[in-house]
Amino acid sequence: MESAFLAWLRQRLPPDPRLRLGPGDDAAVLRLGDGAECVATVDVVTDGVDFDLSRDAPRRVGRKALAVNLSDLAAMAARPLAALVGLVLPRQGGLTLAQELYEGLLPLAEQYGVAIAGGDTNAWDGRLVVSITLLGETTARGPLTRGGARPGDRILVSGGFGGSILGRHFDFDPRVREALLLHERYELHAGIDVSDGLSLDLGRLCDESGCGAVVRTDAVPVHADAVRLAAERNDGRSPLDHALADGEDFELILAVPPATAARLLAEQPLAVPLTDVGQFVAERGLWQKVGAERTPLARRGWEHDFSS
Amino acid sequence: MESAFLAWLRQRLPPDPRLRLGPGDDAAVLRLGDGAECVATVDVVTDGVDFDLSRDAPRRVGRKALAVNLSDLAAMAARPLAALVGLVLPRQGGLTLAQELYEGLLPLAEQYGVAIAGGDTNAWDGRLVVSITLLGETTARGPLTRGGARPGDRILVSGGFGGSILGRHFDFDPRVREALLLHERYELHAGIDVSDGLSLDLGRLCDESGCGAVVRTDAVPVHADAVRLAAERNDGRSPLDHALADGEDFELILAVPPATAARLLAEQPLAVPLTDVGQFVAERGLWQKVGAERTPLARRGWEHDFSS
Repeated sequence: MESAFLAWLRQRLPPDPRLRLGPGDDAAVLRLGDGAECVATVDVVTDGVDFDLSRDAPRRVGRKALAVNLSDLAAMAARPLAALVGLVLPRQGGLTLAQELYEGLLPLAEQYGVAIAGGDTNAWDGRLVVSITLLGETTARGPLTRGGARPGDRILVSGGFGGSILGRHFDFDPRVREALLLHERYELHAGIDVSDGLSLDLGRLCDESGCGAVVRTDAVPVHADAVRLAAERNDGRSPLDHALADGEDFELILAVPPATAARLLAEQPLAVPLTDVGQFVAERGLWQKVGAERTPLARRGWEHDFSS
Repeated sequence: MESAFLAWLRQRLPPDPRLRLGPGDDAAVLRLGDGAECVATVDVVTDGVDFDLSRDAPRRVGRKALAVNLSDLAAMAARPLAALVGLVLPRQGGLTLAQELYEGLLPLAEQYGVAIAGGDTNAWDGRLVVSITLLGETTARGPLTRGGARPGDRILVSGGFGGSILGRHFDFDPRVREALLLHERYELHAGIDVSDGLSLDLGRLCDESGCGAVVRTDAVPVHADAVRLAAERNDGRSPLDHALADGEDFELILAVPPATAARLLAEQPLAVPLTDVGQFVAERGLWQKVGAERTPLARRGWEHDFSS
């Protein structure tokens, strides 16, 4: 079945001028723009953790597997170029599943200019694993990293947070174009995407930048999904709590110098709103501030759990 | 445990000047050589299919997961640059396992000049999955592809074939330096590495080149492992049969114009022997030839099996 699937896949994939060699050889060969650097990220999603095939349609799974990678390139303000798709399929129904995964990811690939450069298709007695590597290229401004936030920079975020488990974690729009536009037109010091939790990922950005952050929690844009989830669960967790810790929002956190931040907030150049939620500070650590009172803010979010 | 593991990993990885940004950001940023193109390949290996953790040491598994990718770059005559390592760990013992996998792959990475550019570490209730993406760059000669074999070209192979399951499928040396040397000094028309079976991969090279091949089966270099395996199994399969169909030899098949092939065979520029096993022909298909008699040669080897 493997060769039958690969034959199907090769006729299904659109040609792409940036692929000097695409699927069908031992490796893909990609053309980068003049002087560009190659940007690379990998994300592995698994049945039972990142999705559940007993509930979730394979097309949504395929879309998500690519979208989470696109969000990583957005966080670097890099231009997507090509993806390599590694599949480990359950033997029973693996062919249909593989085709559905591709049918889910291909429209997103087209939308974001991603060529499918190759992959590896395997089968086993276990559950589905999808491993996508996304390659991109830097723009003339170079990559946006986690390491450049400076004390005094404003913390700007795109969109809203919390409750993505209600469905947004499948259907979100990765902020690729938004990041490219902002990185080109405004001075950004650092950026990260929120995959594991607003507080957790903000903490990671602070770690790489060697600084801390004070979050005005009353300014955090709480998504309507967070409100709905808090109401549905009714377990004492507030919508804000979901916004700070749920993760899989795939929105951007940006470190922006104050004058630029003021201009950005006034101009609101994106279709999605940008919100100022606080500022970076020299002292290491995370704090929340409501009114004049500053208290520690815990880093919460998703971390994979395994033992020694 | 995930963040503890990532902290361990970051101090464990040696710095590399070609990584403008390595592990720790949302994506890696790589410097390519002037005018080079980015070469990319992914291989996913799984517990129970490509190895068995109940028998096989994790270090050998980690080494193999990288080595099979290196073999793909060898088949392209590309220079290895950086790898991204996607892990899906069983929760119990996942930390130790992950560290052992890295301890197995890092010496090989160092040996072949591969920087670990990043990765993704996950845990679940299933068995181990290792997905490695290897990035490289073309040399001034461009990539060696599967598509350039011409009728009349000789079929040259490196090393010996068959019986790799006895242990060589873990401990083989990917033919990276060999391929780079040959591609630089000699005119090669096409190349592929033997991952799934000598006859199967030769057939794939023929497909991409739009030609056929006649194999002088009495000239096929049968590895001592194939002889041993045939004797141990004693099931009627000959050592030659193992050499043609076992796979995971990770040797090179090259299409070489006749005069160059004669020179190559006389000069034997590699530590591993090069052997002439036949020639490419215009007529599509695979044949075996013993003396003057030509009969069809079946494509046999490893294909992943899954159903619709």
